[in-house]
Amino acid sequence: MHVDLGGVLGATPGVSRDSLERLDEQVATAHERIAAGRDDHERGYAALNLPARVDLDAIRSAVAPFTDAEAVLTVGIGGSALGAATLADALAGPDDPDVYVLDNVDPEHVPRLLDSLPLERTAVNVVSKSGTTAETLSNFLVVREAMADAGVDWTERTVVTTGESGNLRALADAHDLPSLPVPDGVPGRFSVLSPVGLAVAAIQGHDLDAIRAGAAEAADSLSGSLFETPAYAYGAAAYALANRGATTNAMMPYAERLETFAEWFAQLWAESLGKDGLGQTPTRALGATDQHSQLQLYRAGPREKLVTLLRPTDRPACPIPETDLEGLSYLGGSTLGDLLDAEFDATGASLAASGVPVIRVEIDGIDERSLGALLYGMEAACVLYGELAGVSTFTQPAVEWGKRAARGLLGGGEFEEAEAVEERTSLRIDP
Amino acid sequence: MHVDLGGVLGATPGVSRDSLERLDEQVATAHERIAAGRDDHERGYAALNLPARVDLDAIRSAVAPFTDAEAVLTVGIGGSALGAATLADALAGPDDPDVYVLDNVDPEHVPRLLDSLPLERTAVNVVSKSGTTAETLSNFLVVREAMADAGVDWTERTVVTTGESGNLRALADAHDLPSLPVPDGVPGRFSVLSPVGLAVAAIQGHDLDAIRAGAAEAADSLSGSLFETPAYAYGAAAYALANRGATTNAMMPYAERLETFAEWFAQLWAESLGKDGLGQTPTRALGATDQHSQLQLYRAGPREKLVTLLRPTDRPACPIPETDLEGLSYLGGSTLGDLLDAEFDATGASLAASGVPVIRVEIDGIDERSLGALLYGMEAACVLYGELAGVSTFTQPAVEWGKRAARGLLGGGEFEEAEAVEERTSLRIDP
Repeated sequence: MHVDLGGVLGATPGVSRDSLERLDEQVATAHERIAAGRDDHERGYAALNLPARVDLDAIRSAVAPFTDAEAVLTVGIGGSALGAATLADALAGPDDPDVYVLDNVDPEHVPRLLDSLPLERTAVNVVSKSGTTAETLSNFLVVREAMADAGVDWTERTVVTTGESGNLRALADAHDLPSLPVPDGVPGRFSVLSPVGLAVAAIQGHDLDAIRAGAAEAADSLSGSLFETPAYAYGAAAYALANRGATTNAMMPYAERLETFAEWFAQLWAESLGKDGLGQTPTRALGATDQHSQLQLYRAGPREKLVTLLRPTDRPACPIPETDLEGLSYLGGSTLGDLLDAEFDATGASLAASGVPVIRVEIDGIDERSLGALLYGMEAACVLYGELAGVSTFTQPAVEWGKRAARGLLGGGEFEEAEAVEERTSLRIDP
Repeated sequence: MHVDLGGVLGATPGVSRDSLERLDEQVATAHERIAAGRDDHERGYAALNLPARVDLDAIRSAVAPFTDAEAVLTVGIGGSALGAATLADALAGPDDPDVYVLDNVDPEHVPRLLDSLPLERTAVNVVSKSGTTAETLSNFLVVREAMADAGVDWTERTVVTTGESGNLRALADAHDLPSLPVPDGVPGRFSVLSPVGLAVAAIQGHDLDAIRAGAAEAADSLSGSLFETPAYAYGAAAYALANRGATTNAMMPYAERLETFAEWFAQLWAESLGKDGLGQTPTRALGATDQHSQLQLYRAGPREKLVTLLRPTDRPACPIPETDLEGLSYLGGSTLGDLLDAEFDATGASLAASGVPVIRVEIDGIDERSLGALLYGMEAACVLYGELAGVSTFTQPAVEWGKRAARGLLGGGEFEEAEAVEERTSLRIDP
């Protein structure tokens, strides 16, 4: 991962070179805190040790029964789904098994997806650390029933990734299912480099060692200075910009295969840093498509924005055929990649010309090693930002209220939050 | 479309009932301006006349050769693609032809998609008002070549939607292709109820009359008071909240099939209102999924947010099987829809308990009539917001800079913007 901060100097909001140098003293302190947390394998910091600790052989062994699958269905939500989806969407080749994710309880979508799958050739990858996530368990119950209805023995087609105890662990034990651990001290949004993210990649046949090697290189590059560490450069600059008014961070990859990465990033950034009135609202965009949707706003709207442009430097060739269409001959002889890269550069310059801060992030290509480095790098960036902001990076207390309310509404116990739902103020306008 | 503003009263930022009543005087004035624009068929306002003006028979006739297609490939970008994609993703049934969109020039994605399509049974729907959009024309040239390579006569498989003159119009004339007009005075992001959005729906066999009828009902409901017009209630409240600090608008449908609607909305809102330092940054979310990704931030992050919760009140049934899994018996006997609706209510209440402003939008179901009403309603909401803010709702001047720069970089002429790209400030951090 290569990071270029040139586009934040002199922007509005912006950070000067001098400010970055002053900030670097805080980065040194934060880096020591992070290193100590890693040494002690503290909750959250432990995620940054995964490249050295994850047991890839255990993953390959657990999914060995499914390597002939035509489809892989992950049943999970949030951090239990986004890492696996990110790797699949980035790395899958046309001949790999198709990857699907049930990360919502939509009564129209779930049965329709199940109807379309070859269930007897589908691997079901159920992921829930607690084993009690309402959405995941509900979906799993529906999947299990669909398999039974189709005459498929679900115990032959299911791999479970869960914590040391709970429903799913008990189920795996009772039915002798292959199972993998959610590592201790690793929040879901930081779990992509654990079995939570890697099991599907293993079924698809991707090179887990290369993913780990890329992540390990990023881990080795962590130092006490943002000027020597791309991940810290990103995290520190984003933090400084947020302090100066950039409450939004538009993550805009210039590659279709990184679209899901932007969703993964949005969870990482939102759930880790959105605390105490602080944080940055991630907004997901896609280059070049969203130049025709969001760029007007980015250039001319409120000045509360950092735009992160991300691209692979290596792209396959896809020539644009020559044409005699009027005014378009300049395109002939170029490639789609030339056009996309020209738009990447043009958008960066266009934002700079308006004074909007831009950080350019480049990876070498869309391959296992580069993805490992990118994912680890963004996790380290997030942890650094959290240290600098002084927030509780690895918790998500604000989501508990709604979980209790929903459970109460469904008759799963007495919860005062459910009563609050009933007292809603209404001012309804009907046609 | 039903709008409930109860969740903005007393929130932070919030709007009081008194403030809404004062604002209603401005709504009355703005409504008169909008009505006058519609009467004179002025640029932009003309979009609100589409339900009365669009020629559905012309659309059905243009696509008649393709109603046996197995796949529909739209080649377009931004407003030329999002409306069609929104309708397809909302309305498509499992037996309808699959809909694909080439709205990016990704050199990996484009050939891979074309390799996977049954080209001889694919309808290609090329959309560009000017006929010179670089991304669309480049992709179309690649598609045309792929068809030639596969022995398919592209002139038999292509329908063109474009302006009165230009490359695509000339091409349609030269090859006698079925063609449809991009209506005068209708910007791309307001064109979903024109052939730009409806041609694909026609190929998929959806009920265009019902889409139009839903939109016409929404048009008929426009009045001079936000308290009587759901669309204006939404637009006026969003405007008032933006003025009070809600620079972000999180659009969060609770339905997988409305995920693309959120992208359509994001373009409408960003490109129309992001001007003069004003506007609201749309961020796309999906319920219940993003409760596990974004909700922590929405509740506890910066107070710059309006959250829009959207759902259909009618959902199909999908029972959750009974279970003896510990602590989950409360789910058995419920349906996935019950769970999703409980989460919708719980999230709204959870945000209210934190003082975050919420607008609830409900549609009757995910069908043609409801979609027509929703799309028209949001367009009217956006136009009203633009009037209240005094911005130039129907232009997008800030995107031109980047277009010129990209063209210059590709050798398509001398543009000073391309020179600015070369002068980029760099502060690069490598691993």
